[in-house]
Amino acid sequence: MKRAYNFCAGPATLPEEVLLEAQSEFLNWKGYGASVLEMGHRSSEVEALMMETEQRFRDVLSIPDAYSVIMIGGAGRSNFGMIPLNFLSEQSVGSYIISGIWSKMAYEEAVKLKSASIVASSEDIHHRALPTVSAKSIPSDAKYLYYTSNETVNGTQFSLPPKADIPLVCDMTSSLLSEPIAFERYGLIFAGAQKNIAQAGMSAVIISNDFLDTIDENAIIPTMMDYRVHVKSKSLYATPPVFNCYIANKVLQWVENNGGIPAFVQRNSRKAMKLYEFIDNSSFYSCKIDSASRSVMNVCFALPDSNLDNIFVTQAEKKGLLALKGHRAVGGMRASIYNAMPEEGVDALIAFMQFFEKENTQ
Amino acid sequence: MKRAYNFCAGPATLPEEVLLEAQSEFLNWKGYGASVLEMGHRSSEVEALMMETEQRFRDVLSIPDAYSVIMIGGAGRSNFGMIPLNFLSEQSVGSYIISGIWSKMAYEEAVKLKSASIVASSEDIHHRALPTVSAKSIPSDAKYLYYTSNETVNGTQFSLPPKADIPLVCDMTSSLLSEPIAFERYGLIFAGAQKNIAQAGMSAVIISNDFLDTIDENAIIPTMMDYRVHVKSKSLYATPPVFNCYIANKVLQWVENNGGIPAFVQRNSRKAMKLYEFIDNSSFYSCKIDSASRSVMNVCFALPDSNLDNIFVTQAEKKGLLALKGHRAVGGMRASIYNAMPEEGVDALIAFMQFFEKENTQ
Repeated sequence: MKRAYNFCAGPATLPEEVLLEAQSEFLNWKGYGASVLEMGHRSSEVEALMMETEQRFRDVLSIPDAYSVIMIGGAGRSNFGMIPLNFLSEQSVGSYIISGIWSKMAYEEAVKLKSASIVASSEDIHHRALPTVSAKSIPSDAKYLYYTSNETVNGTQFSLPPKADIPLVCDMTSSLLSEPIAFERYGLIFAGAQKNIAQAGMSAVIISNDFLDTIDENAIIPTMMDYRVHVKSKSLYATPPVFNCYIANKVLQWVENNGGIPAFVQRNSRKAMKLYEFIDNSSFYSCKIDSASRSVMNVCFALPDSNLDNIFVTQAEKKGLLALKGHRAVGGMRASIYNAMPEEGVDALIAFMQFFEKENTQ
Repeated sequence: MKRAYNFCAGPATLPEEVLLEAQSEFLNWKGYGASVLEMGHRSSEVEALMMETEQRFRDVLSIPDAYSVIMIGGAGRSNFGMIPLNFLSEQSVGSYIISGIWSKMAYEEAVKLKSASIVASSEDIHHRALPTVSAKSIPSDAKYLYYTSNETVNGTQFSLPPKADIPLVCDMTSSLLSEPIAFERYGLIFAGAQKNIAQAGMSAVIISNDFLDTIDENAIIPTMMDYRVHVKSKSLYATPPVFNCYIANKVLQWVENNGGIPAFVQRNSRKAMKLYEFIDNSSFYSCKIDSASRSVMNVCFALPDSNLDNIFVTQAEKKGLLALKGHRAVGGMRASIYNAMPEEGVDALIAFMQFFEKENTQ
C-alpha cells in the first residue's frame, strides 16, 4: 500500500496528512454519527465549516476585508463565462492576455457572451515565453485585464502581475496558495480547487467588493452564475460541495501548520530550481521555455527523441512516479510540483531521470 | 464510533457499505498509489470510471439508448437556468407545474431568462396536495412541461407523471433511483446527487437525444451551461467532480447488489407506509398532506404543540436520530427516508416517537 509520487497537473496530489485525517473520520465526523458527506448544508456544523474555511483562506492569504471569498460548486472553467456575464455590458470590453490555452479559452468565452479584445499574445512563439503587455494596448473601454497566472500546459508563470490601470482579473487555478498576492491590484481572482486547494468539483473566488458593485443592477445573469448571489449567501445559496470545502479547510490548515505561504514559496522554488537546473545541465533533457517565464508549478521538459516518451512514462510509473506525460497539445513530459509534492518526490524524479539517461545513451 | 440514523433531507445518508469501501481505498485507489481524489481526469482510470458510472445508471434505470447520460459538476439547481437557456427560444415558452418551492424557483429562473407560464399550482392550498394538470391549460407554444417529481419541503410526490403531449422535463433530485421511469415521456430528467446518488456537488442528467437536437444552433449559451457540450464530451469537457462520480458508481452498484429498483420500490414504500400509518393512527402526531400526494421519500409531520419541536429534535438526536427538523418554510418535523435509510432506522424513529408521545401526554 505504498503511495506513489503523483506529478499529475490536475487533479493533483494532496497532502498525505490531509488524506489520512479525512480517512480516519470518514464515517463519523467529529462524533456526529454521520460522514461529512452526509451532513446537511443548513446544519450548524456545516455552516461553521464553511465559515471556518473562508476564514482560513483569509488568514493564509492575508485577504483584505474589502474582498469577499466564496466557494462555488463545479469546475473552475465556469468562471470563464461568469466573468463577462457579470462584469461586461454594452459599454465595456474585457481585455485579455493570451499566454496559453487556458487564457485563450477564457477569451473565446468572453467573445461568445459579450465583447473582448486581446492586448498581448504569445501564440506566435507557441507560448514559450510570456507575452509583454504594454499599457497602451489596453482599450479605453476595457473593464478589466484578464490573465492566467500559470499556464499548466506550457509551463509558464507570471512572476509579477501585469501592469494596468484597470482591475486585474486572474485565473490562479494552478498558483493559488503557492505565493503571496498583491490584492489591491485585483478585481477578481478565481481558482479551480484541484491543484493546490482540494479535489476537483469546486472553485474558490476572491472578489473586491468595489468591483462587485460595478455589476449592472439590470444585468440578466443565470442565478447560479451571478457572483452577487454567492457572496450574499456566503456560498450557501444552493447546496455547496461540502466535502470539497472540508478538504480545502484541511489543506489550508496544513499550509498554516507548515509555515504558511512564505514557507511554501521557499519550498516550491527550491523544488523547481533543482529540477530546472538538472534539466539545463543535462545534454539529454531539455526545456524550451524561456527561463524568465518558467513555471514553478509545472516543469515541462523533452527527451531527445519522442520515441522514448512512452518508455520513460511507463518506467517512471513502475518506480512510483506517476502522470509525467505532457499535455497532448504540446507533447513531451511535465512534472507538476504543486504545494503537496514533497521535495523527496522531486529528488526521486531526478534520480530516475539520471538512471533513464544512462540507460538510453552510449 | 456508532453511526446514527440520519434523516436529513439532503445532503442525505449514504449506504454504510459504500462509505466503508471508499474509506478503505481512500489513500490508494485500486493500487494506483494515489487517492481517487488525486487522479487526473484524462487518465485511463478515471475515463473508465466515468464510463462505468454512466453504464451503471443505464443498467439500474433501464435507460433507452436514445437518451444520453451526463454527470455535471455543481449543484442540481444549475439546471433551473440551463433548461430555459438550452430549450427555449423567442418562439416558445416553458410550462411549469408549481407544487412547492423547488418547482417555483425553477419557474422563476425560466421567467428571468426566457419565457414561462404556470399550468397548475397548489400554492393556494399551501402545497398540501399536488395540483391537477389539465392538458388544455398547456399553451400551444409550450416546449416542455416542467415538474418536480418530489417536493422535499412539503413532502409531496407524483406517483405518476403528469399527462402532456409535449416532452416532460423533470427535477428528480429527490426521487431518482427510488422508482422506475417511463423514459419515453421525458425530454430531460435531472437530479442533484445529494439524496439518492452521492454526496453534494454533482448532478446527473438524462436527456433524450431528439430533445437535445431541438436546441437552436445559434443559441448563445455559456459553454458550461450547454447540455450539448457535456453530452458530446461524455461529461469530460472540464474537470468533472471525480470523487462524486466515484461515490455515485459505488451507490449504483449497491442498488444493483440489493435487488435494483424493484427491490427499492418495495423497501421504500414499506418504510413510508409504516411511518404514515403510525402517524395517522396517532392522536399526538399529524400529517397534513393529502394522502394521495404523500411523498415516499420525505415524511412531514407535526407535533400537537410547536413548543415541543425543539425538545423532540434534541431528544431524538441524543438517541442517534438526526436532522428531523422540518424545513424552515413549513416548520414541524420531517423524516427523509431515501434509499440508504434502512428499515431499522424507521423502526427506531417510530419507537422514539412512541416514547416521546408517552412522555408528553397525560
